Amino acid sequence: MTMISDTTTPRDSSSQGSSTRASFGQGRTDYESYFRKAVDRLHDERRYRVFADIERIAGRFPTANWRRPDGSTREITVWCSNDYLGMGQHPDVVSAMTKTAARCGVGAGGTRNIAGNNSPLVDLERELADLHGKEAGLVFTSGYVSNQAGISTIAKLIPNCLILSDAFNHNSMIEGVRHSGCEKRIFRHNDLAHLEELLIAAGDRPKLIAFESVYSMDGDVSDIAAICDLADTYGAMTYLDEVHAVGLYGNRGGGIAERDGVMHRVDVIEGTLAKGFGCVGGYITASTVLCDAVRSHAPGFIFTTALPPAIAAAARASVRYLKRSQVERTAHQRQAALTKVALEEAGLPVLPTETHIVPVMVGDAELCKAAADHLLEQHGIYIQPINYPTVPRGTERLRITPSPFHDAARIARLTAALTETWDTLDLPRAGTVFVEAAE
Amino acid sequence: MTMISDTTTPRDSSSQGSSTRASFGQGRTDYESYFRKAVDRLHDERRYRVFADIERIAGRFPTANWRRPDGSTREITVWCSNDYLGMGQHPDVVSAMTKTAARCGVGAGGTRNIAGNNSPLVDLERELADLHGKEAGLVFTSGYVSNQAGISTIAKLIPNCLILSDAFNHNSMIEGVRHSGCEKRIFRHNDLAHLEELLIAAGDRPKLIAFESVYSMDGDVSDIAAICDLADTYGAMTYLDEVHAVGLYGNRGGGIAERDGVMHRVDVIEGTLAKGFGCVGGYITASTVLCDAVRSHAPGFIFTTALPPAIAAAARASVRYLKRSQVERTAHQRQAALTKVALEEAGLPVLPTETHIVPVMVGDAELCKAAADHLLEQHGIYIQPINYPTVPRGTERLRITPSPFHDAARIARLTAALTETWDTLDLPRAGTVFVEAAE
Ligand SMILES: Cc1ncc(COP(=O)(O)O)c(C=O)c1O
Ligand SMILES: Cc1ncc(COP(=O)(O)O)c(C=O)c1O
Repeated sequence: MTMISDTTTPRDSSSQGSSTRASFGQGRTDYESYFRKAVDRLHDERRYRVFADIERIAGRFPTANWRRPDGSTREITVWCSNDYLGMGQHPDVVSAMTKTAARCGVGAGGTRNIAGNNSPLVDLERELADLHGKEAGLVFTSGYVSNQAGISTIAKLIPNCLILSDAFNHNSMIEGVRHSGCEKRIFRHNDLAHLEELLIAAGDRPKLIAFESVYSMDGDVSDIAAICDLADTYGAMTYLDEVHAVGLYGNRGGGIAERDGVMHRVDVIEGTLAKGFGCVGGYITASTVLCDAVRSHAPGFIFTTALPPAIAAAARASVRYLKRSQVERTAHQRQAALTKVALEEAGLPVLPTETHIVPVMVGDAELCKAAADHLLEQHGIYIQPINYPTVPRGTERLRITPSPFHDAARIARLTAALTETWDTLDLPRAGTVFVEAAE
Repeated sequence: MTMISDTTTPRDSSSQGSSTRASFGQGRTDYESYFRKAVDRLHDERRYRVFADIERIAGRFPTANWRRPDGSTREITVWCSNDYLGMGQHPDVVSAMTKTAARCGVGAGGTRNIAGNNSPLVDLERELADLHGKEAGLVFTSGYVSNQAGISTIAKLIPNCLILSDAFNHNSMIEGVRHSGCEKRIFRHNDLAHLEELLIAAGDRPKLIAFESVYSMDGDVSDIAAICDLADTYGAMTYLDEVHAVGLYGNRGGGIAERDGVMHRVDVIEGTLAKGFGCVGGYITASTVLCDAVRSHAPGFIFTTALPPAIAAAARASVRYLKRSQVERTAHQRQAALTKVALEEAGLPVLPTETHIVPVMVGDAELCKAAADHLLEQHGIYIQPINYPTVPRGTERLRITPSPFHDAARIARLTAALTETWDTLDLPRAGTVFVEAAE
């Protein structure tokens, strides 16, 4: 959210004046007070978020310009981007965008059905279907919308569907489940015994298992093959969010399901174009008839402007490139491993993960924010604090995402900066136990 | 939705084999059959939609290339784009996109809170707040999401809120209302007496009136001033969707509320960057504290990747340009009026509208699709048929959207083509009464 100015009188101030309002009953409700109270509550709970204003610099990732609230700028290193491979600045990707914009213009000009179904988008869907070894692909305006609209529409079309949802599923999946209106059961995170219990209890009715491959905050991974085994045994359908894995894992960037050789066993694979692929947009891939049904029934797909051709072309260039090249994936894993080792050797409380995500625990909202502010101001290192509700209270953390471009020198500087910050703020060291606070 | 190929064997066909599935109870549910049935139902009801695959040509709008299902292409004229002013190809807008992509790369790299809050987006929000004379602006990934997340979050933050919603509100507003979980009353479309009745019946509780300025399918306009009068009298808050008006009406493109001099009386003005402004994305503008509350509480805003800087820069260039230039707005209204006159004089059943939207009525789903297919194949004129559920059954239509670039020669060709099509298919002429079919 951006204000015109903190100092000038707002133009619409007259609309707030009670003089022009009220005359009915006890007068006009003071609506502003509700919004003020909602914001005040966040301040009180120390979870009011301030967005750092940054401008990425193509060709120099992860360097960016940080614009301070006073307008002055400083060059910083971003250590929390989800453009995991730096593909957002890849020459193939940038030039696909600029060339397509020059050829086709900026927007799509309409919904998919009404004048907005552009050829680059059609080609992208084919590319994604191929990536995941599925018959068809369907692109949405974001990964968020693909989950929300995808899960809710799929489940709605299955009579009496029961949704089995991992407890750590992303908000967009939760909203999809909620939106479907279907009955749901939550299984404990990655707890297959619990999932099996729920599958057995459900009996013969149609069932949809919704889960992720890489969980983004703890960096842990689900056992896709074992979940597919359960799905086979108990006749369930599977919906897998590979948002934090596409482009990053598998021989062609198809995600953890590709790495594990189980893509063909998952019914619906969902992904984003905004993280590993460095662009924006989201998608599902599945059978032709499933995609056709979602295409034809999902309001969040139907009643919105299509993704611009220039975005679709850029995303396709990124997907194509990462199907062939292993360099980025190898370097990504290597730099993530080196970062973990460096931080662990410095005695910092790194949460052990098997993936590219490096959480460093703090366990307190205010200290977490203080650490992030200190890193940005004193060291020019940007790592957004992760607080409730993104993670449980008591497990607040700095979530670090090394990319192929975070080289040894940067890792050394990061380690030194974190060490200094941990000393200065007296933050918990390795060995500390972090437990979720009871609500 | 795009299939890899109609002919090759799908790679994931093994997952459909019942051999690897089933062993529990009566075996695996045949999930595919549900999706097939859903799609078959649409075929049966003659409302299965086929997306025309087109590629816009920057600098030659409204000319585009149509890619036929067999892969061959043909140059066509688009008469149904919502890039109403052709701003998607405006040199300022295209160059803002290409320059920013070259400077910052393609994607934002993260959510607004985590590394994705780019400077062009912050500047765009300021530009939009200024456009609507509000304290603050908040950008979402689409107009759809801005309504869905905006309305639901605003209403949820107001205890005991009753939402009063126009019967013709767009699906995204309906989803926002539904999602809020609040009580709602639907007032008959643009029927202020009915709205007043409902306001009186509601009594002193907090109330939110949600409505549009230009209704996109009939092209009619709401009386914003009168609705604000009612809101004042009965102490209600107002939420206005100006999606089909921003850029197009008002001295600076602020929409119908600006044209009518009532922007300051509306609490929340919502708009899109994807139609009049020719890009993609959506927004709300309102008081600082309201935008801050939505920013901090709306899941559909929080848990998704931010709009790319190149898109934000392009949208801002478009908004800035249209604040100064009247040429496009004047030409737009002129060409729309000329189109209406030409079609009316040819005896075609034009629905009278006071706006830039020119609906030509058909009143039957199958004939409507046949007319559109005929126009595309025989005349190279692309007008998507508008069928149920976008409009009520019995009121199926061709919705024509002239732009400043649809010149006299194009209007003449359109008129001739429609006349030939109406003759060939024996479609209803001016004077026919079209009534909504009972469900
Ligand atoms: C697991 C998961 N799914 C979906 C999304 C949404 O993807 P997008 O940013 O493309 O909306 C995110 C994060 O943004 C995520 O972490
Ligand atoms: C009235 C109205 N509001 C909102 C939207 C959604 O806007 P967007 O296309 O930016 O998602 C549309 C159409 O797409 C609309 O017609």
